[in-house]
Amino acid sequence: MPEKLHDSGRSYHLQCTGDAAETARAHSSKEAITLFGSCFCPFVQRVWIALEHLGIDYEYYEVDPYKKPAELLELSPKGLVPALRLNAHNPPKALNESTVIVDFLEELAVSNVKRSSHTTESLFPPASDPYARALVRLQADTIERTLVPAFYRYLQAQEEDKQIEGAKGFIEAIEGLVTLFKRAENEGYTEYGLWNARGSLSYADVMVAPWILRATNVLKHYRGFVWPESKEFQGYVERLLAHPAVKRTTSTDQLYLDSYERYAFNRPNTSQVANAINAGKALP
Amino acid sequence: MPEKLHDSGRSYHLQCTGDAAETARAHSSKEAITLFGSCFCPFVQRVWIALEHLGIDYEYYEVDPYKKPAELLELSPKGLVPALRLNAHNPPKALNESTVIVDFLEELAVSNVKRSSHTTESLFPPASDPYARALVRLQADTIERTLVPAFYRYLQAQEEDKQIEGAKGFIEAIEGLVTLFKRAENEGYTEYGLWNARGSLSYADVMVAPWILRATNVLKHYRGFVWPESKEFQGYVERLLAHPAVKRTTSTDQLYLDSYERYAFNRPNTSQVANAINAGKALP
Repeated sequence: MPEKLHDSGRSYHLQCTGDAAETARAHSSKEAITLFGSCFCPFVQRVWIALEHLGIDYEYYEVDPYKKPAELLELSPKGLVPALRLNAHNPPKALNESTVIVDFLEELAVSNVKRSSHTTESLFPPASDPYARALVRLQADTIERTLVPAFYRYLQAQEEDKQIEGAKGFIEAIEGLVTLFKRAENEGYTEYGLWNARGSLSYADVMVAPWILRATNVLKHYRGFVWPESKEFQGYVERLLAHPAVKRTTSTDQLYLDSYERYAFNRPNTSQVANAINAGKALP
Repeated sequence: MPEKLHDSGRSYHLQCTGDAAETARAHSSKEAITLFGSCFCPFVQRVWIALEHLGIDYEYYEVDPYKKPAELLELSPKGLVPALRLNAHNPPKALNESTVIVDFLEELAVSNVKRSSHTTESLFPPASDPYARALVRLQADTIERTLVPAFYRYLQAQEEDKQIEGAKGFIEAIEGLVTLFKRAENEGYTEYGLWNARGSLSYADVMVAPWILRATNVLKHYRGFVWPESKEFQGYVERLLAHPAVKRTTSTDQLYLDSYERYAFNRPNTSQVANAINAGKALP
C-alpha cells in the first residue's frame, strides 16, 4: 500500500500532455467532424481512440467539463463529453454517448470503404460472421455494465473496508472480462482483439482501454492497486497501452493523477458519474 | 389509486397464455436456433419479438428461471434467460444478454438476405446511413440504462414516498425517450420506429416494448399507474402493442399480474434484477 495520502486540492487539467498533446495539435483545424473532449475523460478517450484507429478526419476541441461552453450545450443538453458535431450538415448534427459514437464511427468507416477504394481497420469481425461480432459485443457489455462502475466504486471508496471491497469488485470485473476473452479464443476467434497477440484492436479493447490505463496510474497511486498476477493479463495490458491509437491519445501519468485526485478523495460534485456511483444509480 | 392490495402469495407462471401460447406451440420443434425463455420475462420477450419480426426459424423452449434446468446452465453460467443455443455448431454455441442477442439476430437476418433472395424486416436504418442508425442506438441506450431500471425501482418501492419517487422517475425516463423520438422525427427520420405512424418496428421499439406492455398491466394494477396525458405517446403505445411481433409474444394480462406479484411486494430473492435494484447496483 502507498503512504497515507492527503487531498492536496489539485485540480483537473485543461489540456492534454505528452503524446495526446501532439495528437490534439495535429487535429486542431476544422474538419467535417469535431470531437468535443476533455483531456482526462475516459469516455472521450474511447471516441478519440476510435477516430485515430479508423483513420477518420476530425478536429479535437478541448472543453472544460465543469465550465461547459455554449457551443457544447447547444449540442448536448446535459453538456456531457464526449460529444461529436457533424459539420457537413446544416445545421450541424450532434451525437452523444461514447458507446453510440464508437458504433457510429465504425459504421461510418465501413461505409466509406464501400464507397471508395480505401481500406480501414474495422473494430469488429466481418458482417458475414454475426456470431463472432456478438462475442465482441458481449465483452463490451460486461465492460460497460460491470467493469466501469467497479472502477469508480473502488476509486471513490474512502473507508478501508470499502476500499478492500472495491478492489475485489474491480478484480472480479476484470476476471469476468478475461473469461469472455478466453471463451472467444477457445472457440477459435484469435484475430479479433488484442487479448490474443495476433489479434487486432477490437470494439471491446476500445471500450476498456481508458480504464486499464487509469488503473495503471490513478488506481496504483491512490489505492495501491496491482494487477492480478497473470502473465497473460499483463501481456494484454502491455499490448493495449502500446497500441498506436491508444498511445496517441494518452497524456502523461501526472495529468491523470492530478485530474483524479477529486475522485480519490470523493470531493462533493466531482462529476455526474461520481454522483451516480455515490447514489447507487446507473452511470449517466 | 387502486384499493390497498395484499400479497396473496401468487406465483409466476410456467407457460405462456393467450397469443404467446399459440406462438410457443407453433415453435415447439427443433430448429437451428433454440430460445430458452420464461413466459413472463421481458428480456426474453425482446429476443422473441426480434425472432418473430425478422422471420428467423427458431424453437421456443420454456424454462423455470428459479429452477434452472441443466440444459440452460450448460449454456449460461449464471443460468440467466434469455439464452440462445445455436444448434448448427458442434458443440452448440450459446449467446446471452438480450441486447447482444437482438443485435446478433438483426445481423444474422441481414447476412441471410445478402446470401439469398429473401427479404427481411431490418430493425435498423440501412448501413448507408450510420447517423440514422446512431439515433436508434441512442434511444435504445436510454431505454437500457434509464427506463428499465426506473421500471423496477417503481415496482419494487414499498413506502408511499418511494412509490411517488418511483413514479416520477419512470415518467421522466419515458419523457427522455420521447425527447429522442421527437428529435429523430424533427431531423426527418420518420421511417424508423413506430413513434411515427408511418414508421416500421425499430431496435429501440423492441428494446422498450416488454416494459411498455408491463406498465399497462403490472404497473397499472399494483401502482395505479396511468400514462402521461399525451395523445402522441398513447398512439405510440397502441401501435407498439398492436404490432404483430409484439402481439404474438404477449400472454394474457393475468399471467403478468400473477408473475409480478413477487416484485410488487418486493419479496426476498425475487430475481437477480430485483436484488440489483435493492442494492443500488447495475442490472445483471
